[in-house]
Amino acid sequence: MSTRLLHPSFQNGIRKGGGENAGGILTCKCSDRPVKVKVSGGIAHNHACGCTKCWKPQGAAFSVVAVAPSENVSVIENSDKLVVVDRSALIQRHACGACGTHMHGPVEREHAFQGLSFIHPELLDNNSWPEPGFAAFVSSIIEAGVDPSEMEGIRATFKDLGLEPYDCLSPALMDYLATWTAKKNGVLHQ
Amino acid sequence: MSTRLLHPSFQNGIRKGGGENAGGILTCKCSDRPVKVKVSGGIAHNHACGCTKCWKPQGAAFSVVAVAPSENVSVIENSDKLVVVDRSALIQRHACGACGTHMHGPVEREHAFQGLSFIHPELLDNNSWPEPGFAAFVSSIIEAGVDPSEMEGIRATFKDLGLEPYDCLSPALMDYLATWTAKKNGVLHQ
Repeated sequence: MSTRLLHPSFQNGIRKGGGENAGGILTCKCSDRPVKVKVSGGIAHNHACGCTKCWKPQGAAFSVVAVAPSENVSVIENSDKLVVVDRSALIQRHACGACGTHMHGPVEREHAFQGLSFIHPELLDNNSWPEPGFAAFVSSIIEAGVDPSEMEGIRATFKDLGLEPYDCLSPALMDYLATWTAKKNGVLHQ
Repeated sequence: MSTRLLHPSFQNGIRKGGGENAGGILTCKCSDRPVKVKVSGGIAHNHACGCTKCWKPQGAAFSVVAVAPSENVSVIENSDKLVVVDRSALIQRHACGACGTHMHGPVEREHAFQGLSFIHPELLDNNSWPEPGFAAFVSSIIEAGVDPSEMEGIRATFKDLGLEPYDCLSPALMDYLATWTAKKNGVLHQ
């Protein structure tokens, strides 16, 4: 059996981020008129994601995805090629209609993540972005066709890589979401 | 600051199950005409749960909840006191309308858990039920008013108790849910 490709950027170990984390230009996979998106500032919460909606490189079971403030994200070339994958989704994923690469995904509705845009840092024109910190929605890769018998090995590989695997988001982010909900519902007041 | 009550049944350590696991009679908290539910057979997947919908003993942040095949669960006394808490919920939680205790919660709609009923084994008339195996929906207790600053300590306490804390269900159950969805969608065929 061939080895499951988790993601090309960390298949053979995590490359530590350059530390600068100053954003850059995201470019889609088109050779003709590629879409370019400028991220003017650092990214945060970079992680591997197994959800069925995140864009993944060819053959990979996981995406690598992070957030930036939406005000720091702007399409600078060939915006006419962008289409929204699913307008009903929380994350408004804007994909290149030609090559399919997801270029930016703002959260616009009222939500703990409102004002953030999800981007794939591997599309940046530099390697100064921080490495992923955990793996989210790991069990979801079964819904994309990974055999359940592979899951034990995949979770073990993530732990070996130093990426703690979760079937939702990380505890810190899950607590953040719950805190937002508690405040919205008047349960917490600070 | 007083110590957070997680659940009376494991606050001072996990009591190992008696091993027989043969079900028994669940009784609500009413002194007058208590509702009684018979579970004729073993329970499975017993766990602590922090979700906001599960019934919890007075002052506890977590419930203890398990499943049994619905065909093994029957109301044997005072069924007229039972009310369904939320008909739109996946789990049709039947509570005693007088004392509020949740007595059984069948999953009736098409779902990976269809045919199972959620019950609280602490209501059984014997101690032969298996101990909880993990803690689910831990971050959700914030939505019930637990201060986010307590979460790190609560997760550490669960680990000390031997109950791995998760913010959704356990990896085994999350894989089970994803496998069911993958089969339903025709992604997996076995």
